[in-house]
Amino acid sequence: MNISFIGVGVMGRGMVRNLMKAGYKVHIYSRTREKAQPVIDEGALWHDSVASCAAASPVIITIVGYPKDVEEVYFAPGGILDSAPANAILVDMTTSSPVLAEKIFDAAAKKGLRALDAPVSGGDSGAANGTLAIMVGGQEETFRECLPVLEAMGKSIRFMGKAGCGQHTKMANQIVISGTVSGVSEAIAYAERAGLDTQNMLDAISSGAASSWQLSNNGQKMIKGDFAPGFYIKHFIKDMALAKEEADARGLSLPILEKTLDTYRALMGNGLGDEGTQALIKAYR
Amino acid sequence: MNISFIGVGVMGRGMVRNLMKAGYKVHIYSRTREKAQPVIDEGALWHDSVASCAAASPVIITIVGYPKDVEEVYFAPGGILDSAPANAILVDMTTSSPVLAEKIFDAAAKKGLRALDAPVSGGDSGAANGTLAIMVGGQEETFRECLPVLEAMGKSIRFMGKAGCGQHTKMANQIVISGTVSGVSEAIAYAERAGLDTQNMLDAISSGAASSWQLSNNGQKMIKGDFAPGFYIKHFIKDMALAKEEADARGLSLPILEKTLDTYRALMGNGLGDEGTQALIKAYR
Repeated sequence: MNISFIGVGVMGRGMVRNLMKAGYKVHIYSRTREKAQPVIDEGALWHDSVASCAAASPVIITIVGYPKDVEEVYFAPGGILDSAPANAILVDMTTSSPVLAEKIFDAAAKKGLRALDAPVSGGDSGAANGTLAIMVGGQEETFRECLPVLEAMGKSIRFMGKAGCGQHTKMANQIVISGTVSGVSEAIAYAERAGLDTQNMLDAISSGAASSWQLSNNGQKMIKGDFAPGFYIKHFIKDMALAKEEADARGLSLPILEKTLDTYRALMGNGLGDEGTQALIKAYR
Repeated sequence: MNISFIGVGVMGRGMVRNLMKAGYKVHIYSRTREKAQPVIDEGALWHDSVASCAAASPVIITIVGYPKDVEEVYFAPGGILDSAPANAILVDMTTSSPVLAEKIFDAAAKKGLRALDAPVSGGDSGAANGTLAIMVGGQEETFRECLPVLEAMGKSIRFMGKAGCGQHTKMANQIVISGTVSGVSEAIAYAERAGLDTQNMLDAISSGAASSWQLSNNGQKMIKGDFAPGFYIKHFIKDMALAKEEADARGLSLPILEKTLDTYRALMGNGLGDEGTQALIKAYR
């Protein structure tokens, strides 16, 4: 079966590979062809436009940078909504605005298309290993039809409710992470000042009530000084800003999220937007 | 072998049981005898004073509430330093001040006694199941001699460095938790406002980059409205205040810890000090 995949960045590469591994014929388009070259070399079929790529398959997956990119790739002339074959399933896996997800769902329905919002968690390693968590909003019937495709890319795949609910779940995910990665950073900064062996400290607390993916993964990177992006600071800022916007719209104040967002924005102001989220420790050193 | 155990609260009960299970003859003292009654019924030997309890064994374990309680039980007339047998090992497992741990270590050495600071993580369930993480400061030789006793109560047991380093590690542990439990609370509050099925949301994000002990354990309790104390808010406030004090003394600002501490203090001001730390969600509802 053909699948179209738009947006072949650090996440998309692994996801395309896993789709090919599962036997799908994957058509791809990305803004920067060089980023896609490795998977083209492995058999993915390159298209020169969104329109051509979208027209090639009954399932069209997108994972691009920002909500404005999602907006463009779906709504611009020659975008997905103009180009997808009748009855196609459109799966946006970008972390994006829940309101935009509803807008795509409605616009798709008007054109006889079906849309899912299906953002992911698990970072580049989850994308590479096919172990992403995928949170899906839309119609349950569409979700079921699309499940085998999602299963090629992820491990924990859940239907969350109507259009936008996948994005809301991802917002919740990012809110958890903002507090968790802040706690990890503050603890490592403390341990360094107190003169502890930080590796020994991490090993000691990684099996108890402080344990987390962030501690075991980003904590290790922090103490090793490895700031290569598994997940970019600039993208995390986007996600947290979206979450804050949604919370604000509901009269909900999230001070830990807001403080974490402020700290990351300061780091980005210092030119660290392309480092991994674990570079938060630099704000404390 | 005899072991003396002072402070038989929600943590101590499980720890005493596991020591007895391992074949130790456990002598106990606690401020409130009723709290100790269940383990007395199971064979622990009750003493009417710290002095009598401390005199009974070559290893004396304490896990009491606050640093002032630690200070009293060690330094008051008839306290442990006055009563312990020659060459005894004094193990304070209370989460307490690193400076106080050093003070006990020095005072013990002057009396021919040996001290370890060995705070734990893992909550009441870790204490009950013998799966506590135990972080130990003091002399490595003393640590090794005491290891079989600690192994009866915990699973991940580590020597962290000189006197006070066990406590510093515990401070780092609590700093991680403060950010993590805040992130979990804010995410659940968000999910509730966004109209998500919160159980489904938790299940969706519990296997990815947001995963943590706090999410899986306290997150579940939050959505079920179970606020029974695994770990008391009043004790967590004590721990966070100690950590803030130590960070301040090193010129280190920890805004996430501080905000979390403020929020917990507001809850305590509203009479929730005896609820579990998962009641943090109430500040957001």
